[in-house]
Amino acid sequence: MAHINLDNQMPGIVGLLTQFKETAKPLTELAQVLLRGESTLSEGERELIASLVSSRNECEFCMRSHSATASHLLDGNKKLVEQVREDFRSAPVSDKLKTLLNIAAQVQKGGRHVSEEDIAAARQEGATDKEIHDTVLIAAAFCLYNRYVDGLETFTPEDESAYDEHGKELATEGYLKFN
Amino acid sequence: MAHINLDNQMPGIVGLLTQFKETAKPLTELAQVLLRGESTLSEGERELIASLVSSRNECEFCMRSHSATASHLLDGNKKLVEQVREDFRSAPVSDKLKTLLNIAAQVQKGGRHVSEEDIAAARQEGATDKEIHDTVLIAAAFCLYNRYVDGLETFTPEDESAYDEHGKELATEGYLKFN
Repeated sequence: MAHINLDNQMPGIVGLLTQFKETAKPLTELAQVLLRGESTLSEGERELIASLVSSRNECEFCMRSHSATASHLLDGNKKLVEQVREDFRSAPVSDKLKTLLNIAAQVQKGGRHVSEEDIAAARQEGATDKEIHDTVLIAAAFCLYNRYVDGLETFTPEDESAYDEHGKELATEGYLKFN
Repeated sequence: MAHINLDNQMPGIVGLLTQFKETAKPLTELAQVLLRGESTLSEGERELIASLVSSRNECEFCMRSHSATASHLLDGNKKLVEQVREDFRSAPVSDKLKTLLNIAAQVQKGGRHVSEEDIAAARQEGATDKEIHDTVLIAAAFCLYNRYVDGLETFTPEDESAYDEHGKELATEGYLKFN
């Protein structure tokens, strides 16, 4: 049971966004801009960042939701999403994305963990200022979403089909429908 | 120097909000709703939560900015703000606020750190569901803002007068002016 009484049975952050409308608006708009807005990073790459950070924060609902979303956006490649979560350095993704995933992993630990070397490695692989900015902010945003979901101990479904369905919805319709 | 090139000389998150408008909108709207929206927690109490979480995340810019803002909203009582940051359990604030500051401190560590006992202690002191919700989300939001500021190594002024001025601005004008 969640730490507070909810007026609905929706899982994870969906129940919170459904009940608390005033904060749902900026929270979903932020996700939409960061994960679906114009970017030289693909939607799948950005969802991989979300999945990795949620995994490091041990937020099961967000990790499973955004892993499913990433998989839907990456030709159904669940194995790739799992590899990135487990060890992104050896996963079959671009070298540039590896350096951005490294920056995201540092942000998850805390903003001060991002070093000059982390940034230089990303630039070396061709990452732009905007890509570095967006990676830091996506990782920071999931440090919020993950804490919102788990800090209030919201409902986490067990059945994988719930995440597949939710992931497909996020992949095809985006975040504003929860606004 | 910041990790990315900024088109302005503004310090901390202000420089980022000034340059990256699309994300500035939801980020400032979230702060406005959480810290200035209708609530049974005073604006000063909410800024104390922001100050504590920023301090635990070792984000100097946010810690000094929101400490100055809290002080402006609490009759200029800088000593109280410092006491809350250093050891809120012995600070001269209400027992209810102490239990909410404890929840915020747990959220800073990670969402899963908030226990049934932490929530029960807050209820015991009369905290409502909405107050618990808002405390968790304010703490989670500062885990985002702090990482955004430090993950990109933005400029942190040394002079206390810069924070006094910024804190007064946030206390009297709120967050939407950075939108």
